[in-house]
Amino acid sequence: MTTRYKMTVAYDGHLFHGFQYQPHQRTVQGTIETALSKMTKGKAVIVEGSGRTDAGVHALGQVIHFDYPGKQISPERMICALNSIMPLDIIFKKCEVVDEKFHVRYSAKGKWYRYRISLDRFVDPFKRFYTGHYPYPVNIEKMKKAATDLLGTHDFTSFAASGGQIRNKVRTMYYVNVAKNEQSNEIIFDFICSGFLYNMVRILVAMLLEIGRGKRPVNDIPRVISAKDREQVRETAPASGLFLYHVFYENIPEKYRLDRD
Amino acid sequence: MTTRYKMTVAYDGHLFHGFQYQPHQRTVQGTIETALSKMTKGKAVIVEGSGRTDAGVHALGQVIHFDYPGKQISPERMICALNSIMPLDIIFKKCEVVDEKFHVRYSAKGKWYRYRISLDRFVDPFKRFYTGHYPYPVNIEKMKKAATDLLGTHDFTSFAASGGQIRNKVRTMYYVNVAKNEQSNEIIFDFICSGFLYNMVRILVAMLLEIGRGKRPVNDIPRVISAKDREQVRETAPASGLFLYHVFYENIPEKYRLDRD
Repeated sequence: MTTRYKMTVAYDGHLFHGFQYQPHQRTVQGTIETALSKMTKGKAVIVEGSGRTDAGVHALGQVIHFDYPGKQISPERMICALNSIMPLDIIFKKCEVVDEKFHVRYSAKGKWYRYRISLDRFVDPFKRFYTGHYPYPVNIEKMKKAATDLLGTHDFTSFAASGGQIRNKVRTMYYVNVAKNEQSNEIIFDFICSGFLYNMVRILVAMLLEIGRGKRPVNDIPRVISAKDREQVRETAPASGLFLYHVFYENIPEKYRLDRD
Repeated sequence: MTTRYKMTVAYDGHLFHGFQYQPHQRTVQGTIETALSKMTKGKAVIVEGSGRTDAGVHALGQVIHFDYPGKQISPERMICALNSIMPLDIIFKKCEVVDEKFHVRYSAKGKWYRYRISLDRFVDPFKRFYTGHYPYPVNIEKMKKAATDLLGTHDFTSFAASGGQIRNKVRTMYYVNVAKNEQSNEIIFDFICSGFLYNMVRILVAMLLEIGRGKRPVNDIPRVISAKDREQVRETAPASGLFLYHVFYENIPEKYRLDRD
């Protein structure tokens, strides 16, 4: 008998070689599996994530599931037990016991990624692991306008780095937002999509910044989408600014359905 | 001929063994001196700081001075040159050419330290290097009230860790503030004093937290001050939450002179 747990987890990605287990590397999955094996006295537990995050990418609301062998533990106790033995760059925030039909990857209806860009001339030492850096004048209105062309269902091939194993690159972008935070001198990009391709957010951010800086026309996105060609956008924003913010298992709330106009 | 530069510098202290130069250790002073020696093609430049910060302690507004040999460089160019060769955990924010009578330590009229305490049950991974952690219920009003007893001129011997070399422990506390930030679930402590003794802020914070938690009476501070005995406060809050926020070379502004009532 095993019990399936669904847990929400936050991590500071800067000291991890990404989410996915790799031998001899410090990964999020590997670190959680090691902690679980302490609780099971050595029985291996496989952790499934809602998706991989790359080296240096952070999560505020990554979701995982695993089948815990042996005696069922209350969600509250599972959180406490795991947080007491985890290294400080990972923290469990929520826990539920779920049906075995629930799968953290296949049951997800969408994901929310956030990207932070610092506009400071020199990188603030306290932000160096948590923002991308773009010390150039950018026009936020241009980026806002351009970003609306991403909404809806498209083949996002032009925004997928090689290396992904997924063939079907059609996704639905439900929500995009580009906002300036004056106090922190940052641009915050938010994207909610039915699913994201490899490096997709980082490529989208790089393209939007080129539009904001005037290096690319505001109406370039429909052309790039229809080209279905990764060579159309050569830049990729760095991992440091990227946060997996939330995974939706419910339908995407109406307020985030900008695709339906 | 040398030129004296006064510079304001911020650093993330978590990967430094403190400010002061130590052989075979990564220190703020050592790192800046190495950068300067690249600019002078090997001529040693000694960096003076307004004060030392310990391992793990951060600065938003540390001030340094040094005598730069050879051709005078504009402050603007000095900032650019240094920031381009510094590691990313140190950044220069301001630069002035000053008279040789200016001394970064002896000319200072006061310093402002800030301390951040996270009240979260488990440490937020993104705050682990930048806050102390106190997952207990605390009464902010009690701490606010108690802190006012620190204002004015006192012998602060009870709040000085052994290891400091200073004999005269009389200082003037100009300003104290204890505030809750609801959004981040943190307590922010601010102290402006004519000078701080070794570990003084971290000991004061530990004592105020004991008062907030009810482990010490609200009116305990006058007794502790007059005891002149470090054994009266045994705890020291961790380095991670401490920030050197500002150094005053002008008179302390009136709005920060709560000592004059």
